[in-house]
Amino acid sequence: MTPARKFPQVDHADATGELKEIYDDIQDTLRVAWVAFACRVLATFPAYLPLAWRAAQPNFATRYAERAADTLRERSLLPGPNPPDPRPRLQELGWNEARIDAVRHALDVLNYGNPKYLLLITAWTEAFQDRPSGGADLSRDDAAPIPRGLPEGVAPLQLVDPDTASPEVQVLFKRVSDLHFHHGPSSDYRVLANWPEYLQLALDETLEPVVRTEDYDAAGRTLLVQARELIRGFPASAGIESNTLSELCTPSEIAGLNGLLFMYQRFICDVTIDMIRLKQAFDGPEAAAASPFPVP
Amino acid sequence: MTPARKFPQVDHADATGELKEIYDDIQDTLRVAWVAFACRVLATFPAYLPLAWRAAQPNFATRYAERAADTLRERSLLPGPNPPDPRPRLQELGWNEARIDAVRHALDVLNYGNPKYLLLITAWTEAFQDRPSGGADLSRDDAAPIPRGLPEGVAPLQLVDPDTASPEVQVLFKRVSDLHFHHGPSSDYRVLANWPEYLQLALDETLEPVVRTEDYDAAGRTLLVQARELIRGFPASAGIESNTLSELCTPSEIAGLNGLLFMYQRFICDVTIDMIRLKQAFDGPEAAAASPFPVP
Repeated sequence: MTPARKFPQVDHADATGELKEIYDDIQDTLRVAWVAFACRVLATFPAYLPLAWRAAQPNFATRYAERAADTLRERSLLPGPNPPDPRPRLQELGWNEARIDAVRHALDVLNYGNPKYLLLITAWTEAFQDRPSGGADLSRDDAAPIPRGLPEGVAPLQLVDPDTASPEVQVLFKRVSDLHFHHGPSSDYRVLANWPEYLQLALDETLEPVVRTEDYDAAGRTLLVQARELIRGFPASAGIESNTLSELCTPSEIAGLNGLLFMYQRFICDVTIDMIRLKQAFDGPEAAAASPFPVP
Repeated sequence: MTPARKFPQVDHADATGELKEIYDDIQDTLRVAWVAFACRVLATFPAYLPLAWRAAQPNFATRYAERAADTLRERSLLPGPNPPDPRPRLQELGWNEARIDAVRHALDVLNYGNPKYLLLITAWTEAFQDRPSGGADLSRDDAAPIPRGLPEGVAPLQLVDPDTASPEVQVLFKRVSDLHFHHGPSSDYRVLANWPEYLQLALDETLEPVVRTEDYDAAGRTLLVQARELIRGFPASAGIESNTLSELCTPSEIAGLNGLLFMYQRFICDVTIDMIRLKQAFDGPEAAAASPFPVP
């Protein structure tokens, strides 16, 4: 078996021109510290992302979007007892509090963004398949803008590149993908790979016991159902119909885009649940389900 | 809104040369009376289908594959009471027994094939993502070949074309897609559209009450889990790794193929459950869960 190459995508550091502007605007509008795997892969189809993001942007600049993400985050806890606190094991491995706090902060940043990306891809999927992704009347408060740019104290996340990662990290990435039946590691796991010891511990103790269990898949379904309802509350259509691309894309590109939107919608449900579970292990269910950076 | 075009695909009647040979061989090997929506869409990526089918073919010519499909069919019933028998309503609409039997026969033909296509797309998905899709030792009996070609009394199914269907049927197709959150009508619904009165009744009375309920999604998950286990029992890898295509496809094509395989795996779970549910309404759960054309 030849070593798997990184899934086709345009990383933020490689984006130029209009694509870089869109990546920056996605981060600034959503107030998130990375551009989602889904967006980076969709960027390999040049016609799609600019049109789709232009439709999404005004919707995601509202308090409605912020609250919708908060609602999803609240629904992302798995039932059952708390996972074990990883601190004792990390301390045994020689970790000090600052290092532990760096992981906790990364989880906060990821947990702030994942539900927003779930809304984004859900809106894009529904619109692509000719179903409503907005058009509701918002209250003045819901229509009000949220601040632009990253929350205070948040810097862009550093993603480990699967192609140049250490053999140890490549093994962990493969394990993450196979555990979920995914096609590659999400941005979230590429961030956690900055701390391979923690990533391995998280897989061993927190995630492997739950991922793809009945409860886990039921939680993903709940998120999906909720996300579909929430995107219909956007003020305007937040995505584009596949017909819009009939002059700009080949038939196989239109088919492929549809498949990718469908896939990433479910992929992001999984990742949302995972990162909230990891946060729960450190800080309990209430902290895990709350917005780490509430908009005042 | 412009009317939705048919999802990009190559219909059997439009296939020529090598592609037509592959379509015919898929039908003959699986003993099914149509080429699945998934295959027709994957055919828009010329490099993929010939390689993937060549890997699948010997695996699907075995009794193991036939039995694996039988196992999936047995797991496709939804819990709860039987759906209402549609015969009284059809008779009120003036249907005679021959017409009712034509629908029942079509359901048998679809139910014979759907679990086979679920295995096929599952094997292709797993292989594409570098996970095992075969390599097991088969007993002599499991390794024995099944007959080639359609079962006795089965003719190729006629699929109504969404682009040229009557406005009434187009409305039913849209309803089917939206009910499931799908991207278009499966082959199965294109077959049932030969009887629009029945299709409408099936939606009203049999499917709308259950599709996308918690029980329905849980049944789809069970099928998916089971299909993943079963494909690892094939004698040889039944699909190709994405790396195989790195010289033959663009990055966006490889990404798109991955998304489509992921999507159709879940799509076929839904359709499998639906058609077995429709058969159950006519003939009860035992008949619905049994192979309509058992291999002697």
